[in-house]
Amino acid sequence: MSKDIITLAHGNGGLLTHTLIEQVFAAAFANPILDLQGDSALIGLESGAAVFTTDSFVIKPLFFPGGDIGKLAVAGTVNDLAVAGAVPRYLSASFIIEEGLPINELKTIVASMQRTARQAGVVIVAGDTKVVEKGGADKLFITTSGIGTRIHETQEFTPANMRAGDCVLLSGTIGDHAIAVLSARGEYPLKINIQSDCACLNDLTCKLLRAVPAESIRIMRDPTRGGLATTLNEFAKGGRYAIEIEESEIPCKQEVQAVCELTGFDPLYLANEGKLVLVCASEHSSTLLEIMRAHPLAKAAACIGRITDNSFKKVVLKTTVGGTRIVDMLAGEMLPRIC
Amino acid sequence: MSKDIITLAHGNGGLLTHTLIEQVFAAAFANPILDLQGDSALIGLESGAAVFTTDSFVIKPLFFPGGDIGKLAVAGTVNDLAVAGAVPRYLSASFIIEEGLPINELKTIVASMQRTARQAGVVIVAGDTKVVEKGGADKLFITTSGIGTRIHETQEFTPANMRAGDCVLLSGTIGDHAIAVLSARGEYPLKINIQSDCACLNDLTCKLLRAVPAESIRIMRDPTRGGLATTLNEFAKGGRYAIEIEESEIPCKQEVQAVCELTGFDPLYLANEGKLVLVCASEHSSTLLEIMRAHPLAKAAACIGRITDNSFKKVVLKTTVGGTRIVDMLAGEMLPRIC
Repeated sequence: MSKDIITLAHGNGGLLTHTLIEQVFAAAFANPILDLQGDSALIGLESGAAVFTTDSFVIKPLFFPGGDIGKLAVAGTVNDLAVAGAVPRYLSASFIIEEGLPINELKTIVASMQRTARQAGVVIVAGDTKVVEKGGADKLFITTSGIGTRIHETQEFTPANMRAGDCVLLSGTIGDHAIAVLSARGEYPLKINIQSDCACLNDLTCKLLRAVPAESIRIMRDPTRGGLATTLNEFAKGGRYAIEIEESEIPCKQEVQAVCELTGFDPLYLANEGKLVLVCASEHSSTLLEIMRAHPLAKAAACIGRITDNSFKKVVLKTTVGGTRIVDMLAGEMLPRIC
Repeated sequence: MSKDIITLAHGNGGLLTHTLIEQVFAAAFANPILDLQGDSALIGLESGAAVFTTDSFVIKPLFFPGGDIGKLAVAGTVNDLAVAGAVPRYLSASFIIEEGLPINELKTIVASMQRTARQAGVVIVAGDTKVVEKGGADKLFITTSGIGTRIHETQEFTPANMRAGDCVLLSGTIGDHAIAVLSARGEYPLKINIQSDCACLNDLTCKLLRAVPAESIRIMRDPTRGGLATTLNEFAKGGRYAIEIEESEIPCKQEVQAVCELTGFDPLYLANEGKLVLVCASEHSSTLLEIMRAHPLAKAAACIGRITDNSFKKVVLKTTVGGTRIVDMLAGEMLPRIC
């Protein structure tokens, strides 16, 4: 029976670590680079501009409607590369495991990572495993890092690119991920039927970047922790203008709205894991919206607002009832361990 | 007072996360790439062979004689790149923080990372921070990933390169890191005065690689978790011959030996964090040893053994008393959370 759970000896760097690597990780992630099993992976990259990113995932619970920590760990890092205008190429994955984790759970998660990576066209080429004693961690944390190569080699996506009159496009409904995780925690006595939107956005961003002139997409971001409101605030803070968004144009599922009304959460601050927000030159917004709506991950895409010629550097929400309010960055505690 | 410790709100992705990033991470790691503060870092790489690696660090306690988790997290990943024959170029650093960690401790650790990175000539260009609730993790875990560019572009360091007659060189004393951490834990009522050997090996490996023909260094490794015995077993398992080592030639401090005698640990299996073991063509061993002994990190370097023409694929130890024993990979649990 003890063979079926992770023990401290699986983290000693010796025989059991090797067995775990071979039977769980190497078996699932098999590829010519990883198979060399050096301490480092040899990767080929064209010269020029590469993109490098990292993210840790501490989501609780490990499994939730629409995904699991493994899918999330791959998609999250793929998306950071995608919104930097890059084609994701190589991932590393490092596991911090609490003693006692069933090996079958780990296998399921690792299989989910491999499936997600394959779909996104990235390979997992490097990894590490550490085991901590019971109570020293909560089941499993995964850190992924990623390397991508840029589609337009010289383009930098920064808020400084934004111009007055630019459009703000959002690829779909907000808050799905947070509410799905909330429901999986069972802390609220609610029957919620929402799936996390956890998905890899790189196919979508590639299609968008290739459809319009290089500079017409000013900036892209996936609004995860802190939600759409925080991402838009980052845009506004780094740019030179105010961003005006229309509450009525922001897609949000009825069930999500209903849970928010009951719990007091604001969907604008809820985490998403498969949504794209971008600012583009207005003359290309209809082309981009068309491509989005034809893509399975962005059917509900909408133009939700504009960059104004006001040098206020804030996010202003025009509410459905005709009012106006300033939307700040998330200030207090929201939902811990949402990603 | 609550401002001086990490709270869950520091991990919400909003205002406090931004404050933490600006006041702790961005302030310490400041460099032109990181300063752009995108979700990904734009890095420049020559075309050709890059090396990519990752490691998580869960060491307990966070501070120990000779180092801390920050120094270790940088040196560990730098060393994985160094022993792959690469010049370390870019690092990412991801932090999983338990609620309640004093911000001053975090600042000290981050400063230590920056100091170590600067000494090694790498820049920390990407990062992430997650906060988990009290009891959900143990103070702080750090995951670093690294990208390097290879010195000899086409050379692969694998055990398959080893030839009968090759020499095994070790850069210094074994077991220092493990015993230093053991003493910091205070679990044994011992007065131990050992410093961890935690250090970046890339300057040393660069000098060695540039001093001899490309193929004459067959393989290099830093014997961390699992110790020298496990590393040599990995070499033997991946090669075609037995490795014969001389117990009397393996440098080990008297204090480390004394603690091992009292506690029952075998220094061959104890973790090191600043030692290099390499296999080289015998005709270049004296040149390499000379360079090592002239380097501050390898003054006690020694030739500790040979690759034999025996196809046994095991590690054989010739003991000081004239006996012979097979040294296997570490089998049971050793010292958890040693790195």
